[in-house]
Amino acid sequence: MLGLRSAFWQELQEDLKQVEGELEKALADIPHCLFREAALYLHQSGGKRVRPALAVISARCCAYPVERVLPLAVALELFHMATLVHDDIIDASILRRGRATVWVKWGKRFSLCLGNYLFSYAMSFLSHYEDKRINRILVYTSARIAQGELEQLARAFDITVTQQDYFRYILFKTALLLASSCQLGALVAGASEEVSRLFYRYGRDLGLAFQITDDVLDMVADGRQLGKPIGTDVRQGVITLPAIYALNHSSERDRLAFLLSKRDKGEEEIKETLDLIRKSGGIEYALAVAEGYLEKACRAAQALPPTPAKELLLEMAYRVKQRQK
Amino acid sequence: MLGLRSAFWQELQEDLKQVEGELEKALADIPHCLFREAALYLHQSGGKRVRPALAVISARCCAYPVERVLPLAVALELFHMATLVHDDIIDASILRRGRATVWVKWGKRFSLCLGNYLFSYAMSFLSHYEDKRINRILVYTSARIAQGELEQLARAFDITVTQQDYFRYILFKTALLLASSCQLGALVAGASEEVSRLFYRYGRDLGLAFQITDDVLDMVADGRQLGKPIGTDVRQGVITLPAIYALNHSSERDRLAFLLSKRDKGEEEIKETLDLIRKSGGIEYALAVAEGYLEKACRAAQALPPTPAKELLLEMAYRVKQRQK
Repeated sequence: MLGLRSAFWQELQEDLKQVEGELEKALADIPHCLFREAALYLHQSGGKRVRPALAVISARCCAYPVERVLPLAVALELFHMATLVHDDIIDASILRRGRATVWVKWGKRFSLCLGNYLFSYAMSFLSHYEDKRINRILVYTSARIAQGELEQLARAFDITVTQQDYFRYILFKTALLLASSCQLGALVAGASEEVSRLFYRYGRDLGLAFQITDDVLDMVADGRQLGKPIGTDVRQGVITLPAIYALNHSSERDRLAFLLSKRDKGEEEIKETLDLIRKSGGIEYALAVAEGYLEKACRAAQALPPTPAKELLLEMAYRVKQRQK
Repeated sequence: MLGLRSAFWQELQEDLKQVEGELEKALADIPHCLFREAALYLHQSGGKRVRPALAVISARCCAYPVERVLPLAVALELFHMATLVHDDIIDASILRRGRATVWVKWGKRFSLCLGNYLFSYAMSFLSHYEDKRINRILVYTSARIAQGELEQLARAFDITVTQQDYFRYILFKTALLLASSCQLGALVAGASEEVSRLFYRYGRDLGLAFQITDDVLDMVADGRQLGKPIGTDVRQGVITLPAIYALNHSSERDRLAFLLSKRDKGEEEIKETLDLIRKSGGIEYALAVAEGYLEKACRAAQALPPTPAKELLLEMAYRVKQRQK
């Protein structure tokens, strides 16, 4: 089974090389040298091109040639880059994948313009498709991403955030774009509304698992491996799933509530907060929830018509699971 | 003639009331209360709804009922609002139309999200139109606005900015959106490519005149009347047309060059800079250039097929001219 998966995985790498080529062409075409330079810098920092990969696999599940899904794949990655540039301003992040963020190198005002530019540039690639839903879905997703950012921002240091709130934030901020990547890949390939809903659900649940895992890693990973310091969420008052669990289950709830709601925590306090969350079992709980979403994602994928590419969707879920280790 | 114009002007006011109603409905529909509150705050600060007005008039020139141009008019105003919210962050402006700017009231991170939200929300209204050019033109304009912002930003305090550079910045930053407003109004009304080009040229030249006048007002207006302090451009190192003229014609060129390129000028130095520009004749020169663009705009409008609404385009140009007084 894994051998079979690997064969398709190899084929996907070939497709993704084409995406990479198109993406590089798109970046080289950016008219202003500073925009181009900064966009290439961000691009060369790495990244797994998850969104283009999901679009390509989904289109492949519908027997669509990779060439025709390329503009969508480029649009999705440019769009994702736009959100990264803006997110790093909003979160005041100084490192991404181990390198200085764009605003640290070029300034915040510049980064605001660059994000706007990349967003518009991304949208321009959608004009390759006749189907008006393509554009509509990405515009909708974009509005929800901004809303999710705001909602989480508005609740910073607020320990009354519930699990339900949290799932809504990460759905808007992260999972919807992964859902859209799958759904759009299927739609450009001519999938029916019904089938495209399965892709949507797969991408959404994968995205939820992905973000929960990301939030866990921010509490347990090795900072150097992560490419950024750990404890960022705790520092910035973003209340994620392990913290919500710990607030309800820790034996030192009051102390934890005090720490999580405190602004400008010292390094010792951040360490203490992370320790309390870890001791409460919040990490294991969050990972179990993430695994539940991965299983849901796989069930959606299993319901798809049988194609070789479908195995890749399962493989993607498997890789998200591996990140947890 | 003016009586005739006034009759159509009255009719336009009725159309704009409908736009206003739709816009208010759109703002009331914003899902998150903080976004809604901030967007309403910005909306209620006033503004002349120039872009919806241009779209409505242009559509009327093509005998299109106002009802069908409403989504476009709403999109244009929301889009404009998005750019205002971001511009005020980029320019660090604390006042707009005499009131605190959105970032001053809600913070920069919030405003970044709000701008992104409004931009996506604006784009969502374009799905009312089948014609794919509508979306493409606004996306293109949006990319150019970001590019114009960046280009001007990158040349702050740079006294080697030429007139050609300046015209390019204001074309991207301001005039293209006015050009698009006219062009899109005509296109949704079914105008031919050729006729829509006339609308584009009218809007572009009106926009150039509008921005040049704006830049002049920043140097000569009464700060209270303007709703913001004067001398903002000089303070922020934005080299506008009167300054470029003065750099070439002032009898105290060296002193002016020193002042314009100096960061963190004191209030006395700002006053001196403005005085030198005024004494050089830079204001009169810029106004003459603006008038030239207004005449070009009117010539484009004159070339349109004769309709009553066409008079309104000439009236709009006349009103931009009146701002100079």
